[in-house]
Amino acid sequence: MTQLDVRVLIGSLRSASYNRKLFDASHELVPEGISLTEIPIWELPHYNQEIQQDPTPVVERFWEAIRESDAMLFITPEYNYSIPGVLKNAIDWASRPAGSSPIYGKPGAFFGASGGRSGTMRMQLHMRQVLPCLNMPLLLKPEVFIPNVADAFDDEGNLVDDRLKGQLIEFYEAFEQLIRLQRS
Amino acid sequence: MTQLDVRVLIGSLRSASYNRKLFDASHELVPEGISLTEIPIWELPHYNQEIQQDPTPVVERFWEAIRESDAMLFITPEYNYSIPGVLKNAIDWASRPAGSSPIYGKPGAFFGASGGRSGTMRMQLHMRQVLPCLNMPLLLKPEVFIPNVADAFDDEGNLVDDRLKGQLIEFYEAFEQLIRLQRS
Amino acid sequence: MTQLDVRVLIGSLRSASYNRKLFDASHELVPEGISLTEIPIWELPHYNQEIQQDPTPVVERFWEAIRESDAMLFITPEYNYSIPGVLKNAIDWASRPAGSSPIYGKPGAFFGASGGRSGTMRMQLHMRQVLPCLNMPLLLKPEVFIPNVADAFDDEGNLVDDRLKGQLIEFYEAFEQLIRLQRS
Amino acid sequence: MTQLDVRVLIGSLRSASYNRKLFDASHELVPEGISLTEIPIWELPHYNQEIQQDPTPVVERFWEAIRESDAMLFITPEYNYSIPGVLKNAIDWASRPAGSSPIYGKPGAFFGASGGRSGTMRMQLHMRQVLPCLNMPLLLKPEVFIPNVADAFDDEGNLVDDRLKGQLIEFYEAFEQLIRLQRS
Repeated sequence: MTQLDVRVLIGSLRSASYNRKLFDASHELVPEGISLTEIPIWELPHYNQEIQQDPTPVVERFWEAIRESDAMLFITPEYNYSIPGVLKNAIDWASRPAGSSPIYGKPGAFFGASGGRSGTMRMQLHMRQVLPCLNMPLLLKPEVFIPNVADAFDDEGNLVDDRLKGQLIEFYEAFEQLIRLQRS
Repeated sequence: MTQLDVRVLIGSLRSASYNRKLFDASHELVPEGISLTEIPIWELPHYNQEIQQDPTPVVERFWEAIRESDAMLFITPEYNYSIPGVLKNAIDWASRPAGSSPIYGKPGAFFGASGGRSGTMRMQLHMRQVLPCLNMPLLLKPEVFIPNVADAFDDEGNLVDDRLKGQLIEFYEAFEQLIRLQRS
Repeated sequence: MTQLDVRVLIGSLRSASYNRKLFDASHELVPEGISLTEIPIWELPHYNQEIQQDPTPVVERFWEAIRESDAMLFITPEYNYSIPGVLKNAIDWASRPAGSSPIYGKPGAFFGASGGRSGTMRMQLHMRQVLPCLNMPLLLKPEVFIPNVADAFDDEGNLVDDRLKGQLIEFYEAFEQLIRLQRS
Repeated sequence: MTQLDVRVLIGSLRSASYNRKLFDASHELVPEGISLTEIPIWELPHYNQEIQQDPTPVVERFWEAIRESDAMLFITPEYNYSIPGVLKNAIDWASRPAGSSPIYGKPGAFFGASGGRSGTMRMQLHMRQVLPCLNMPLLLKPEVFIPNVADAFDDEGNLVDDRLKGQLIEFYEAFEQLIRLQRS
């Protein structure tokens, strides 16, 4: 069975980000058939059509990393009831050029953690409207909402919430199935 | 009557942007009681809580420009059925720090132009969910959607669509009323 | 000061509905200047333009009840991540006839309770997109989300959650201010 | 190849509805492998959990019709920037009982026509958030938005817009592929 190369965009840039910690912890939770690799989105400039038409090496590398992938995963907090601007900027880059966008048609999934009670529910609703316009088949279930995320980690930054671990294992298994179904 | 100082965030960065041209044309369409001043959003870094806690001069200036304003206007295209990442990033900055955000409670309005047929309908729907979380009273009517925007300008970049001009005049008059009502 | 006549649409029809109980409990939580009266939405037929053009007495009474009101309040659960169909049907009736809709321009507010964890967060997001098309100025803060609603009541159906009571008192005070501001 | 039994919910109840005409015209546009059958939603009562627990024959028949189907199609106008209440009510019924909902997991697709310019763009955005909570894999492309729908028909009610016919043929072909992929 082919190994699936999933590329990950993380929506929070601070080094101690809980969403980054969830990415780190995920390497041990994914099925054997999946590998997770981050694509750095902080290197990207703000989207500008002029740069797109004469792309810098950073933009070229970003497009190439998406083109090589088998699927896209978004792990991200919710900012102002929506997708963080920095992550939306990366999606805007990924969606160009219009006719030959590298992200177009790739299977996708998302989850995220927030300090408050929404657990990124509202961010995920906006993703359900944004990613279909890029023709991306999306993981439907399970949905993983992580409120009060600080409680899920111990003082050393280890993910110690077994219920959440179980949810993520189930999430990644379902994502693998979605990706393989789309390739069949 | 007090002059109202409206600050404007423009969601497209390319120099020939139609949304920028709509901003330029607006100076002649606003009522006497309103002045429009752009705040440059392209200078802002990607939002990062670490920078927020030790803000750079660019961030400080951005916050100050919003704090001084009487109201906020967003003129922007729609990217991937939503708000452009670069504009959402500016909104994310404007929303911080959580307890003393400069944008919190300011009256707001938005419109925009797109090359396609939505005329930014979908971007505006996301704004209706994002800005209320910042306690911003929003202009309700008229809604201004501008599809096929290229047709509204002549070859010298002058706004020549009289119907659209009329809509914008009505939009700015209603916005002035909203701002004055909120100050009463 | 004029007494404000707020009419209420309740989105759940079962007799033991928690949202109905929240309506019942609200009579003691509203400021003196506000009275709450329910409009029965279960009497309405499914919306049909043919009935609209030759309206039945039930439809006429519904329109009249809204026309008399000073503002509209929606207390409702969330069904399938959105507004219950029966409540949306009432809003569809209230929005007609297009040129002389009785609900057009009325101040509005909403809150609701759910058994699960969203606390009607997602229903409220859809309300933020639906009601502005009817030119309704909406209450922005506080937002009242009520998850796990069964815990808020005792066995006799009395609202005993003091924190929630406090939130609702604040909600109704802010709503009164909004209504009075719009009438000024 | 198995014949696919697609059941259709139509969101407008008036007899001269353009969305109904689009359903009528669709029988000649679907691929050989698909048959379309309407499920009458106007017979359903307003959703009420008490009726659900002791369901009437109409409700039982509605559930049975969905259970038998291979996939669900929604053809509907947009009311107040969202899904018509009468259609949302049918979706609410279809989603129950929670643990053994007949619609859960069925492939789905939607399109619709409106008199105005949105062409049901906004209704479709809400469907993208509602149907995934029922675990329904949704058709992504092509999206069919039909503004100014009256122009697409001749005086006898025949669909004469060849461009729209072509779009619908493509839509139904892609829907057949989606349904077959999900069954594989």
